[in-house]
Amino acid sequence: MSLETTSTLAHAAPEARDALGDYLRDCRDLVLAELERFMPADSRYRPILYDLMLDYPLRDAKALRPALCIATARSLGGSLEAVLQSAAVLELYHNAFLIHDDIEDASERRRDGPTLHRSQGVPIALNVGDAMLALALEPLFDNMRLVGLGKALRILKAVSDMARNTAEGQALELSWIRECRWNLRDQDYLRMAHQKTSHYTFIAPVVVGGLIVGASDSELFELRMFATALGAAFQIQDDVLNLVSDHGTYGKDKLGDLWEGKRTLILLHALRSATEEERARAVEILGKERPLAETPRTNVETVVRELWARSELSDAGYEAVLNALGRAESSRATKTEADVGFLLELIRHYRSLEHARSVARTRALRARHSLQRLKPRMRGVVHREFMEQLVDFVVERDH
Amino acid sequence: MSLETTSTLAHAAPEARDALGDYLRDCRDLVLAELERFMPADSRYRPILYDLMLDYPLRDAKALRPALCIATARSLGGSLEAVLQSAAVLELYHNAFLIHDDIEDASERRRDGPTLHRSQGVPIALNVGDAMLALALEPLFDNMRLVGLGKALRILKAVSDMARNTAEGQALELSWIRECRWNLRDQDYLRMAHQKTSHYTFIAPVVVGGLIVGASDSELFELRMFATALGAAFQIQDDVLNLVSDHGTYGKDKLGDLWEGKRTLILLHALRSATEEERARAVEILGKERPLAETPRTNVETVVRELWARSELSDAGYEAVLNALGRAESSRATKTEADVGFLLELIRHYRSLEHARSVARTRALRARHSLQRLKPRMRGVVHREFMEQLVDFVVERDH
Repeated sequence: MSLETTSTLAHAAPEARDALGDYLRDCRDLVLAELERFMPADSRYRPILYDLMLDYPLRDAKALRPALCIATARSLGGSLEAVLQSAAVLELYHNAFLIHDDIEDASERRRDGPTLHRSQGVPIALNVGDAMLALALEPLFDNMRLVGLGKALRILKAVSDMARNTAEGQALELSWIRECRWNLRDQDYLRMAHQKTSHYTFIAPVVVGGLIVGASDSELFELRMFATALGAAFQIQDDVLNLVSDHGTYGKDKLGDLWEGKRTLILLHALRSATEEERARAVEILGKERPLAETPRTNVETVVRELWARSELSDAGYEAVLNALGRAESSRATKTEADVGFLLELIRHYRSLEHARSVARTRALRARHSLQRLKPRMRGVVHREFMEQLVDFVVERDH
Repeated sequence: MSLETTSTLAHAAPEARDALGDYLRDCRDLVLAELERFMPADSRYRPILYDLMLDYPLRDAKALRPALCIATARSLGGSLEAVLQSAAVLELYHNAFLIHDDIEDASERRRDGPTLHRSQGVPIALNVGDAMLALALEPLFDNMRLVGLGKALRILKAVSDMARNTAEGQALELSWIRECRWNLRDQDYLRMAHQKTSHYTFIAPVVVGGLIVGASDSELFELRMFATALGAAFQIQDDVLNLVSDHGTYGKDKLGDLWEGKRTLILLHALRSATEEERARAVEILGKERPLAETPRTNVETVVRELWARSELSDAGYEAVLNALGRAESSRATKTEADVGFLLELIRHYRSLEHARSVARTRALRARHSLQRLKPRMRGVVHREFMEQLVDFVVERDH
């Protein structure tokens, strides 16, 4: 297969109807084939390790990161062959982070399926993530053959910086959770999101794309500005969508972030704007746990409830057991519908969603300006247009 | 500080009393200082991330891996300055693996303290391990300055191979656990131990040490043979010590591997030697879980027991709740003292400990022969002697 003559990446007409979607799909197909190529053939380890690495990438996903990396390099005149391998490495990192994040957040679902630690257990899932981080280094060495020693080393360094930045951002958010910290400014939130999400979702893809074509320092600087602004807009919009339904109104089933007590620009704005009394109640609510879905203890509750219903257990005895079960389950209370309703009302009252949308729009505008400044150097029109469409998509998307 | 003139590493007298211990302690001091140097100074991330990376290394530990790396390079004429940084990287990897292993094995204690996920929670501990894996790459890039580009790249490749091999070995053991596989030969066990433990404990240290001095292919081959044999002996001896007390008799409190149901050369030999009936019973026992220490459900049990004792709950009701609690806790039965006694008796009867010791001795002998063949090249006498003493220590140690 000649990579250069494949699909829209090489010569799509800009008037294509869903150009953004087509571009993403084409990139994704190429990246999946590349990931498959990375996997060692050793049949002893295929089913117990390497096949599991492909589980998340093969589920329905946009593969945004490699597409952005490919678009950056191609718009600046690079070849698909030179960039594809590095783009696929970014997708491998992304999916390794997802596996570990899902364990850290005790998430149950990912891309319409159970999370890997739910299907395989925490030990296997954790190890698969570690193996992906190790495997990702090999194509980066192989880059020396593709793009030469100097560029390969700079890419390796950029990827290693990215991995460390991501862990720092994650450490910051986990420390806030641990210390029950809620007095956070926009800039605290934006720094965390910058480290934790923008670095590997936007900055590393454009920097790696730029390094592959030998971009100048000033071009790399502008690419970084673009990615930083776009990353902030993306993350804020993600939080907005969690609160808002497809039709632009406050959604009912979409309040996962509030149930979870996630620090978002929106919630932090509401807390800062609230009266002292409101803030105290909100922080108390946020200190409660999200109610668990089904737990093994349901068994016990069922049996105890039946005993009580058959009068084999007194009211006081029933309550004592339930209390003990509550203590056993968690020493913290759980959030109620009314609790989440209170938080939502604060957000409504203080127009925090509007504040977040305005910050996101400002950042998207900055990203557009950066792209505008890069435009004279971006001769690959299809690829530059993808990046422009991506900025629009980030603030206008409803999913 | 001039690294070249520090302590026994540079010019210790070989007649030192506890030469092995002194050598290890000196290396450890240097490596800890080096690890401290790797940590970014950024005060925002020190307490929530980087200080936690130093938690395990600062506890009581031998720091065997960096010592072996230093000894290999120094015995072959390398300078301490050239090897120290890479040796410290190996210690960083080792401790990252320990943090993730402790999560995977749900271990409670490590080096006389709580495991990191017990003191910090799983999310923070998992992320600290990931950050260590990312941070470890930076000194490996910096190696270009210390040992030149070619050697630095070969070392980077050796470390990345090591990380992948370790994950493969871990995947193999986890797959056996998951599939309840017990029909395993010595060579299955030795392959797993080779991948999972020898690679990062022995092979990577000597290979990196050799690469730093520009060892020839045949020297690297011999170093690998040495490390492979020594690694097998070390792992088997580790399993032997778990069964045997300080005084060489079967220990009572040291049967953690049997309680846990760990696959060891010893247990696998006993299973292979046993009659079909014995084997069936042993496998059934090994399918049971280790009894948990304290669990949150003790609360519930206490309350239910009190209700029953005060006749507020019938015998049948009490049993129904206890059954439900048992189901809630685990669907599998737990091992008893008698179960573990049965396994121990099999091991005694079929002389499986003697079998394991004999395999370990054979491997140690191979390691000695490899070292003998390398001797003419090993002009750094103190360092070569450390490696010789290490072989003796591995099979003779009682801790």
